[in-house]
Amino acid sequence: MCKVPARPEVHPALATRFSPVAFDPDTTVSTGQVDTLLDAARRAPSAGNSQPWMFIVAHRGDGVHRRIVPHLARSSTAWVPDASLLVVNLAQVYVEGTTDWEYSEFSRYDLGQAVAHMIIQGLSVGLDAHQFRAFDRDAIAAEFEVQPHFEVTSMTAFGLAAHAAGELSAPGTSRERASIDEITWARE
Amino acid sequence: MCKVPARPEVHPALATRFSPVAFDPDTTVSTGQVDTLLDAARRAPSAGNSQPWMFIVAHRGDGVHRRIVPHLARSSTAWVPDASLLVVNLAQVYVEGTTDWEYSEFSRYDLGQAVAHMIIQGLSVGLDAHQFRAFDRDAIAAEFEVQPHFEVTSMTAFGLAAHAAGELSAPGTSRERASIDEITWARE
Repeated sequence: MCKVPARPEVHPALATRFSPVAFDPDTTVSTGQVDTLLDAARRAPSAGNSQPWMFIVAHRGDGVHRRIVPHLARSSTAWVPDASLLVVNLAQVYVEGTTDWEYSEFSRYDLGQAVAHMIIQGLSVGLDAHQFRAFDRDAIAAEFEVQPHFEVTSMTAFGLAAHAAGELSAPGTSRERASIDEITWARE
Repeated sequence: MCKVPARPEVHPALATRFSPVAFDPDTTVSTGQVDTLLDAARRAPSAGNSQPWMFIVAHRGDGVHRRIVPHLARSSTAWVPDASLLVVNLAQVYVEGTTDWEYSEFSRYDLGQAVAHMIIQGLSVGLDAHQFRAFDRDAIAAEFEVQPHFEVTSMTAFGLAAHAAGELSAPGTSRERASIDEITWARE
């Protein structure tokens, strides 16, 4: 029994995904749309179903957005504020009130998966996304009084890409990847 | 301008995904199919396009599989060997020959994303997947002479689920998740 197609191909959403460095500044996303992004994230798998993630959500121009933008690094300010939506990704690294946790070693791994699910959900309805680290983590943690058992790990900008894949020469548009052989350590 | 649909829903592949604890022991996957899983993984985004991942691939019954199975923990031996495919997920944590790396903090986060892409690619052609940690990491590293700048992080079993979501009472079948509100730290 085998239901795998004879001539498989990578799903188009995964094959054409890229991280835009320019977003359309007029595109907006609805609250319902944001709910589906968060819903996709919360359904992601995690070690022992620990769900070590939390998110800060900002629509372009709203109050949360105004609290995030001042903490962007200079390299982000040219393109991040145009995105329709910013999501700050928090990883739970400890049990609350402690400095240890049995699932701590998978906190970032699991957060990465939840963010990937969120981004693929966005792709399924035409939203592009670009994750970045170029912002002041400590300032964001202080601004939003993030609890000490959470780490401010990364941020994702969602919106409509204002350029095609590879069109702009910038880190986020890089499409070079190692080959399948180069990422395979052992295989028959 | 806004191309987001008025009544968005979570993509069915993400909404119905679950981690089976029993796989059909006769289902096989082709080499071409495995290539698409690896292709999906290698296209995943990563910090500075660092691509901190490597994979060990084993088809049920092949030589690589025979080298992995003895290192499974007792809790895994009941269901893991039936899976069509085992993929060991390795995270690059250092620059080769060193004990440091600028992208080290995102190694597991990025590996998590690559694994999520691999699993969603599998879902798109009807392959279910279950990630797990119940195996001897050090033994796998020794068995395959994994380089010291890589960490043996997790394993994924791919195959055809032999039960429906929630049908078996086991950790992997847990479907309880925090609500959208519970995973949202700040939002207007």
